[in-house]
Amino acid sequence: MAGALPRSPLAPERLPDLAPIAGVRLAAAACGLKKTGAPDVLFVALDPGTTAAGVFTRSRCPSAPVDWCRKALPAGSGRAVVVNAGNANAFTGKAGVVTVEATVAAAAKEVGCRPEEVFVASTGVIGQPLPADRVARHLHDLAGAFGTDWAAAAEAIRTTDTFAKAATRTATIGGTPVAITGIAKGSGMIAPDMATMLSFVFTDAAIPAPLLQRALNAAVDQSFNAITVDGDTSTSDTLMLFATAKAGNPVPSEGGPADAAGLADFQRALNDLTADLARQVVCDGEGAQKLITIAVSGAISDRSARRIGLAIANSPLVKTAVAGEDANWGRIVMAVGKSGEPADRDRLGIAIGGVQVAQGGMVVDGYDEAPVAAHMKTGSIDIAVDIGIGRGRATVWTCDLTHGYISINADYRS
Amino acid sequence: MAGALPRSPLAPERLPDLAPIAGVRLAAAACGLKKTGAPDVLFVALDPGTTAAGVFTRSRCPSAPVDWCRKALPAGSGRAVVVNAGNANAFTGKAGVVTVEATVAAAAKEVGCRPEEVFVASTGVIGQPLPADRVARHLHDLAGAFGTDWAAAAEAIRTTDTFAKAATRTATIGGTPVAITGIAKGSGMIAPDMATMLSFVFTDAAIPAPLLQRALNAAVDQSFNAITVDGDTSTSDTLMLFATAKAGNPVPSEGGPADAAGLADFQRALNDLTADLARQVVCDGEGAQKLITIAVSGAISDRSARRIGLAIANSPLVKTAVAGEDANWGRIVMAVGKSGEPADRDRLGIAIGGVQVAQGGMVVDGYDEAPVAAHMKTGSIDIAVDIGIGRGRATVWTCDLTHGYISINADYRS
Repeated sequence: MAGALPRSPLAPERLPDLAPIAGVRLAAAACGLKKTGAPDVLFVALDPGTTAAGVFTRSRCPSAPVDWCRKALPAGSGRAVVVNAGNANAFTGKAGVVTVEATVAAAAKEVGCRPEEVFVASTGVIGQPLPADRVARHLHDLAGAFGTDWAAAAEAIRTTDTFAKAATRTATIGGTPVAITGIAKGSGMIAPDMATMLSFVFTDAAIPAPLLQRALNAAVDQSFNAITVDGDTSTSDTLMLFATAKAGNPVPSEGGPADAAGLADFQRALNDLTADLARQVVCDGEGAQKLITIAVSGAISDRSARRIGLAIANSPLVKTAVAGEDANWGRIVMAVGKSGEPADRDRLGIAIGGVQVAQGGMVVDGYDEAPVAAHMKTGSIDIAVDIGIGRGRATVWTCDLTHGYISINADYRS
Repeated sequence: MAGALPRSPLAPERLPDLAPIAGVRLAAAACGLKKTGAPDVLFVALDPGTTAAGVFTRSRCPSAPVDWCRKALPAGSGRAVVVNAGNANAFTGKAGVVTVEATVAAAAKEVGCRPEEVFVASTGVIGQPLPADRVARHLHDLAGAFGTDWAAAAEAIRTTDTFAKAATRTATIGGTPVAITGIAKGSGMIAPDMATMLSFVFTDAAIPAPLLQRALNAAVDQSFNAITVDGDTSTSDTLMLFATAKAGNPVPSEGGPADAAGLADFQRALNDLTADLARQVVCDGEGAQKLITIAVSGAISDRSARRIGLAIANSPLVKTAVAGEDANWGRIVMAVGKSGEPADRDRLGIAIGGVQVAQGGMVVDGYDEAPVAAHMKTGSIDIAVDIGIGRGRATVWTCDLTHGYISINADYRS
């Protein structure tokens, strides 16, 4: 570990005020997994009737907790969540599975539910055994301390994060107001050392599990699936959404689009909240000095646009150019070309900071770099790329690649 | 540009002695594209009867010279090659095409051949017009200076390369000795600024163009397609192989495998030469302090093994760990997982520097890090990953990711 890192220059001034969610109680404590002695276990209890949805890492080598959550999720019911930071319980063999089962059993006992209603997540060092009772033995005391200290929850799941991440939104379903509050952690997308992406989002709405999963899939597509720091993918990435059914909204019916179920406003708010959390993760990217927003238009499809956007966002040469405050559009052309997606060099247009730089496959006549150079000195860089061959669009967020990234990831011994 | 860079610590002591190739004459000169005034144009003449093969960037936004070569190659005949460094003639619109045509016409006139027997390559700054006669006007004088100064040729095509790259091998075809000599440039795989990968390989063997192309495809697969520095792909990557038919070997017949054509020994030598050149490119990777060799076995296919190898080789977290001399095998697990290729966490084995670190999905019993830590301090790092589910194998080469990479690519203004 690199020791205490300075707070990211892209961090928000403070944690936003968070709307508590009826039916959610939580508590955090220290179980000694963080060397600093800071809180590193979060226990969340959810009232009976809570539905659950989740998306997990696409890694072919997922952690034991991810395996468990995937197995438990089809029941669609959530009564407890246990998260620890400091040890990822990944690549820990059968011992890792035993630890998950012990944690789940202890949580189920405290909350009074079935094991498959308990979800677990671990983030931290990979390949280091996590003793079976290390987390479990703290759950009884935590249950005695349940409350609504969401800020403490956001703190407890941090690892190399330089700031705690949370967001809150409101929406209406069938005229009834509902609230959504979520916490997240992640920095350096996504180091297995101490920087897995985890996020837990809670709403008081009543939404059947299949509809909740559909809403989460749509939200993640334009948020957590549209960000990258270094293109690396954790063994442990976990995003879960729980709905406690306390708001008294008319229960949307399954089948049909979210619109038809009266969930359009909820979906809008959920999209907004997840995009907010995802951008906070990028703003805490290891060594990040600048947030980069890449808007791709004119691709053959939205999917193709996102792939092109991610190719640009993952290019070390684009990211170092931004770090150097260099409006190096040639590197953007390179990244479009390497994406493998349909593109026509001679229709390509690029704007930086709202100034058209290249058009029709070459630099624009009389290109004046001065306003672009000024934009490059700011903390938020806008790159717009028009592929010019279709109507597909996507927006992707990333950060620059700086000496800070190298320092955090190379200049230490594990 | 970052100015003159120190010679890579991984550079060979000196350029190897190169076997001249009968039927190949060459000369280099300065046309002012390199700000240093160093030679930046190479003109190569090939005797009548020379066959040609080539592979080019997979970029969807290739440079005008690449477009030209792709169009000319099917004729299978090579009489001239013109290479310039300092300007990539990429993303230069119709003007770029005009420049290629002017260069080709001038070369064809000097050598006395058809335009489609002339091949061109440009490396350097992207998006900056290259005046039509800038290179062309030097070709007449260069033709008057034709000789066999291969070292000068290797020098002329350098851009940010910190050392010139060349290799030579011998083989026999039907009992007749033949020679192969090649030059290459590339560093930072593959920045469009000044670091496209170019390589030109020449043999005195007589080999029909279709067989020559097949031999080149096989060679590139285990050499230039098995290296990466930063995963970025140039608009201009070009690798060409020319056979002058001066050696007097029995001409292999088309059709059937290379073995049947008596080309097995030639293929072995060509593979060895291209792997040598490819490793030289990696050893000149921007900021490289360590060469990393990643041997993947036990994948479901050779193709799958190479993808896994490249996922490890392109992982910023693996590369920074090596830079930090940290035997961080958790990051290797992460990279295997993110490759998307079939893998079974619980069968995965990892060895570093010949020492088994992880086996069966977890760290080995009594793992002693001392010998591994000693290996990590050397300049050549060996990582072996056994996927444990098949017989597919591949070896991939890369370099570490250091502050030097950031300095070269961020700490300057274009």
